[in-house]
Amino acid sequence: MYSDLQLTEDRPVYIQVKDYMKRLMLKGGLQAKQKLPSTRELSTLMKVSRSTVLLAYAELEDEGLIYAVKGKGNYVSASIETPEAAANWELDWTTEVSEYAIQAEQYDLMKHGSGAERGEISFTSIAPDEKLFDLHNVKRAFLDRMSLEGEVLLNYGYAQGYRPLMNYLLRYMENKGVDLRGKDILITNGFTEGFDLVLGALRKKSGKALCENPTHHTAIKNLKLHQFHLTGVNMEPDGLDLKQLEHELEASPYDLAYLVPSYHNPTGIVTSPAKRVEIIRLMNKYQVPIIEDGFNEELRYSGSHVSPLIASMGKGNGLVYLGSFSKVLFPGLRVGWIIADAALIDYLESMKRARSIHTSTLDQSLLYQYLSNGNFEKYLKRARTEYKRKYELVVRCLKQYLPMCRISGAGGLHLFVQFPSEYRTRELLAACKVKGVTFTPGDTFYLEPGQGVNTMRLGFSRVSDENIRKGIRIIGETAAQMR
Amino acid sequence: MYSDLQLTEDRPVYIQVKDYMKRLMLKGGLQAKQKLPSTRELSTLMKVSRSTVLLAYAELEDEGLIYAVKGKGNYVSASIETPEAAANWELDWTTEVSEYAIQAEQYDLMKHGSGAERGEISFTSIAPDEKLFDLHNVKRAFLDRMSLEGEVLLNYGYAQGYRPLMNYLLRYMENKGVDLRGKDILITNGFTEGFDLVLGALRKKSGKALCENPTHHTAIKNLKLHQFHLTGVNMEPDGLDLKQLEHELEASPYDLAYLVPSYHNPTGIVTSPAKRVEIIRLMNKYQVPIIEDGFNEELRYSGSHVSPLIASMGKGNGLVYLGSFSKVLFPGLRVGWIIADAALIDYLESMKRARSIHTSTLDQSLLYQYLSNGNFEKYLKRARTEYKRKYELVVRCLKQYLPMCRISGAGGLHLFVQFPSEYRTRELLAACKVKGVTFTPGDTFYLEPGQGVNTMRLGFSRVSDENIRKGIRIIGETAAQMR
Repeated sequence: MYSDLQLTEDRPVYIQVKDYMKRLMLKGGLQAKQKLPSTRELSTLMKVSRSTVLLAYAELEDEGLIYAVKGKGNYVSASIETPEAAANWELDWTTEVSEYAIQAEQYDLMKHGSGAERGEISFTSIAPDEKLFDLHNVKRAFLDRMSLEGEVLLNYGYAQGYRPLMNYLLRYMENKGVDLRGKDILITNGFTEGFDLVLGALRKKSGKALCENPTHHTAIKNLKLHQFHLTGVNMEPDGLDLKQLEHELEASPYDLAYLVPSYHNPTGIVTSPAKRVEIIRLMNKYQVPIIEDGFNEELRYSGSHVSPLIASMGKGNGLVYLGSFSKVLFPGLRVGWIIADAALIDYLESMKRARSIHTSTLDQSLLYQYLSNGNFEKYLKRARTEYKRKYELVVRCLKQYLPMCRISGAGGLHLFVQFPSEYRTRELLAACKVKGVTFTPGDTFYLEPGQGVNTMRLGFSRVSDENIRKGIRIIGETAAQMR
Repeated sequence: MYSDLQLTEDRPVYIQVKDYMKRLMLKGGLQAKQKLPSTRELSTLMKVSRSTVLLAYAELEDEGLIYAVKGKGNYVSASIETPEAAANWELDWTTEVSEYAIQAEQYDLMKHGSGAERGEISFTSIAPDEKLFDLHNVKRAFLDRMSLEGEVLLNYGYAQGYRPLMNYLLRYMENKGVDLRGKDILITNGFTEGFDLVLGALRKKSGKALCENPTHHTAIKNLKLHQFHLTGVNMEPDGLDLKQLEHELEASPYDLAYLVPSYHNPTGIVTSPAKRVEIIRLMNKYQVPIIEDGFNEELRYSGSHVSPLIASMGKGNGLVYLGSFSKVLFPGLRVGWIIADAALIDYLESMKRARSIHTSTLDQSLLYQYLSNGNFEKYLKRARTEYKRKYELVVRCLKQYLPMCRISGAGGLHLFVQFPSEYRTRELLAACKVKGVTFTPGDTFYLEPGQGVNTMRLGFSRVSDENIRKGIRIIGETAAQMR
């Protein structure tokens, strides 16, 4: 006892001594009313200074775990009891959980998907490349804001969001052409919480939802978790197949349509201006609210300027816009936003309060300060240049090594690749994995089994130039052998 | 046009010029293919430097909004269109929202409760006193961690949590006597998200839940939002009325019991060791999982050392523990944790991923670094001393000005006050508000209308000594007049 104290470097020594003694008491190694070693004895046994032991004993007394008797020494508190054995209370949690929990686990791609292993060339991620992060400016933004109002940032904030950031984002959306009359904003823990809140806020009438097919797999998961039946509308090179869309709308009522009009995930397609106008007209006609996912808007490499769909709505209120900088700036900061009709935002605010009180004020204020220091524009310029370079490299490599494929994608951090119909990209993936290369099989993004089995998504943001070349070459060679 | 540019101080000037021009194009003030003023002209009109205009034009070109014709000037992109008028699309969102959204709004005390106004002496808050925050150490923790792995912190993290923090908290709970065998941890956005996740994860069998009466009003709200029917068990000075508890358990099956065994909200009661043992025995006997809210454990001022209930469970797995530092450290950092059976945590992790991907890595890593720098113990000591002093002041003032009342509370940031039965604290509150003093009427925390109408909760953490004296004196005088 005592001499087996093992010190680690990451905590003050007196705290480690205190914790050691506390553990002894709680585990019965030291009993109630038992005398503790003197500070001199313990310091010798533990090979720490006497002042360290004195500090540790003071802390233990402060916590009510020991008491001092003048001239006699320190004793374990009378109230310390060895834990009652309730060890026989064994619940089988697998039978205690809800259908929702079971489905959330089943649909969890991080658990059941094809993850990448260390050392592999992985095209699975569409997260930003952290080498581009301007840490210096992030640190400055933090220190700037902490100096201004650190106490405020660390205490409770408001469910709707941190006011300066809300105002900044409202202006930011206005600059994209959004008419803010009658609308309001809610800050969320990224796109995902925003989407979850909106789905929970909508009254189910038909219980049916429209979406692009293929589409963002997290969105598919969350729509299913909210018990929506999904109808997918096929994608053409300039956006939704409008004939099919109108056909579906005529055939059945829908509670909502989830759409990614710009740099769609996974196809990278930008919906054309003409189709946008028509989509809004149809949704208005059939009174189907649109949930717009604006996640990638900033990452344009070529083609015309793209506005979000909500910018074409005027003061109409049938569209709920979900914004995020997670693909452009820092996903570790969980900050997204919803722009929608003020009445809806009012409900969403109460739901947000009930579920997580508010989004981290630190994240929000750091982001605000970073943005308003003017760092975003500079960062975006640098990031866009770098991603565009990689994007073009991927396109060149694909043309060279996979000349039989059709590729799509005009921006963002990924490209979508369609093989001739006889290919099976899951088989290709299995063969490539052996050679240390992974990608996301495209069927992940489709609603029905058997769809998109000859497609793949290539995320390139975090792959080096050398590995882009090598990886796509390996995919190409492997595909050629499989023919 | 142009000369009405109004510059603000918080953003670089060239960005404000860019945004001004962009807004003009999007709102139709500048039409597709129209020529822009020369940089020299615009600089004169806007009273900004020519280099600023050059920068702004370069940004606009970069965004695809304008194009340059050599020797001629800059032109608005052909693709810019004035927004289509979809202004007639008006949905009535109040009829589009779900029952859940409507209830979340109805139960929202921030909207429908008795909030405090500026300048009032308010005893409504139980948030920590931000004057105690050691900003210096928070800044250092941030810079330490950013320097070590800033890129990692700003990119996507893991749903289960930031590993160093998870390990720290596991050890922290072990030091409270928790047997971690078969258990695991999940990091959440504070207690509230943790509670919401656990409630969503439990299979509804009876649809009934047990709780203390009174209890934490956010917990009542969330239990109701999850459609649980609540049975309240009365509180005695040493914890639950065990006779009533057993009676309820015999009478009906329950899906869960939500308990706050230490420094209960609102009564401040600490459940006695003997009652803790009996509660666990009963819950085990009737197989009712316990959700333990450990929110205030650190704020002990007097009495014996208090362990969480989970520390008495051995390796039994029938209890789900929800931890938070929000009342002790920084609530602006939204970080809480769940300790429970590993199989349950596995489901909760997938639910967490589906709802918000993960908790802010920045918050988690900052908290970890702050804790492992040894700041927590020092801060806690200082905070405890200060809160204890205030606590004792409140007790003295209550005895002086409200001698007819019974008070309870042995720790935390509030006291609970029970008036003789003829008093109505909502009437008292109305009379006190006129005099600039507010508190939380105790009935807020009770399950049934008409209960606790002669009680109030006094949160003292953010009230100055002078205002504590003045406020309680006013409450006392007002109560005397109402007799």
